[in-house]
Amino acid sequence: MKLHWSPRSPFVRKVMIAAHETGLVDRLTCVRTVVAMTEPNTNLLSDNPLSKIPTLVLDDGSPLYDSLVICEYFDAMHDGPKLFPTDPKARWTALRRHALGNGLLDMLILWRGERERQQPSQPHLDAFAVKYKATLKALEKESPEIGATPFGIGHIAIGCALSYADFRFADLNWRAGHPQTAAWHASFLQRPSARATEAVEG
Amino acid sequence: MKLHWSPRSPFVRKVMIAAHETGLVDRLTCVRTVVAMTEPNTNLLSDNPLSKIPTLVLDDGSPLYDSLVICEYFDAMHDGPKLFPTDPKARWTALRRHALGNGLLDMLILWRGERERQQPSQPHLDAFAVKYKATLKALEKESPEIGATPFGIGHIAIGCALSYADFRFADLNWRAGHPQTAAWHASFLQRPSARATEAVEG
Repeated sequence: MKLHWSPRSPFVRKVMIAAHETGLVDRLTCVRTVVAMTEPNTNLLSDNPLSKIPTLVLDDGSPLYDSLVICEYFDAMHDGPKLFPTDPKARWTALRRHALGNGLLDMLILWRGERERQQPSQPHLDAFAVKYKATLKALEKESPEIGATPFGIGHIAIGCALSYADFRFADLNWRAGHPQTAAWHASFLQRPSARATEAVEG
Repeated sequence: MKLHWSPRSPFVRKVMIAAHETGLVDRLTCVRTVVAMTEPNTNLLSDNPLSKIPTLVLDDGSPLYDSLVICEYFDAMHDGPKLFPTDPKARWTALRRHALGNGLLDMLILWRGERERQQPSQPHLDAFAVKYKATLKALEKESPEIGATPFGIGHIAIGCALSYADFRFADLNWRAGHPQTAAWHASFLQRPSARATEAVEG
């Protein structure tokens, strides 16, 4: 399988963590594909017209995206502990947590884009700050439960979002006031799948 | 169940179509909740710190989001034809199509936001146009197959995205050059679930 990949994309990291957790990483051929909000990658458009990574191309040539779908695909291909619970209550919780982590990630990426504009919009910056604070507050409340739940797709999204905050928003110092979230994230970072997929400058 | 709802949100429309298709619409109490990119709704933050709609609140008070998760939740609660196929190949196709429609929707919303800025960024506007054209081209190619597949989550996302293009981007005139997509979308609009959930100005 070919994976349109980048070493710094947090969405790519999600699927790489899933690939490690499911034992499929050796079956991936990672192709470095650069995308940016203002620079669609014309070589990627035939596999994914939205010009987003990760995009997986199966051996029969058919594409698969987005990161959530690729993670679920990997999860269906192995017999180990499932990243997507099948028990209904556990499944809705995991998917809601995924949406929380992934939504935080979407927001941080837009926030970063806003900061980098020549004329950032203050109302946008202010709104991002409000939602960021509310999300960190919600995570702080839920962190003990998150830590007590078998590792899965929710943990992957939340872990990658917080690591992205470390990588691109060091000034936010998100751990301040969020000790339980920080403790959970420290345990996330110790997983081999997280260690093997750390973002690097370059 | 309480649904944070708005008559014009295309993401809310997705879950309302799913509610109609699964026969659950009468079990929803829709509460009008206004959100905007630059105006987080403080009353919504306790249910969804990302301040996004739709957000579902179950009878036990626990929240569920985003729109994809709510649709899957509804689909698990009925015995009719499933919106999320269980057959693996059909499932990955449906979820990839959902990601395509949902990604188009995400992009159109950002594009609209960009257009409405006092000083829109031309590189952003140009990039949206490239991705929009590539997506419509991909949909045109796939439309006959989409039309031949049992109605499901992929159709809902693509249908809502194209209807949003009608609603907010009439100037794009997306049907021009995309006759197969237009034909499929016309059939989508005839479904009772689509007719019951048309966006209205107001």
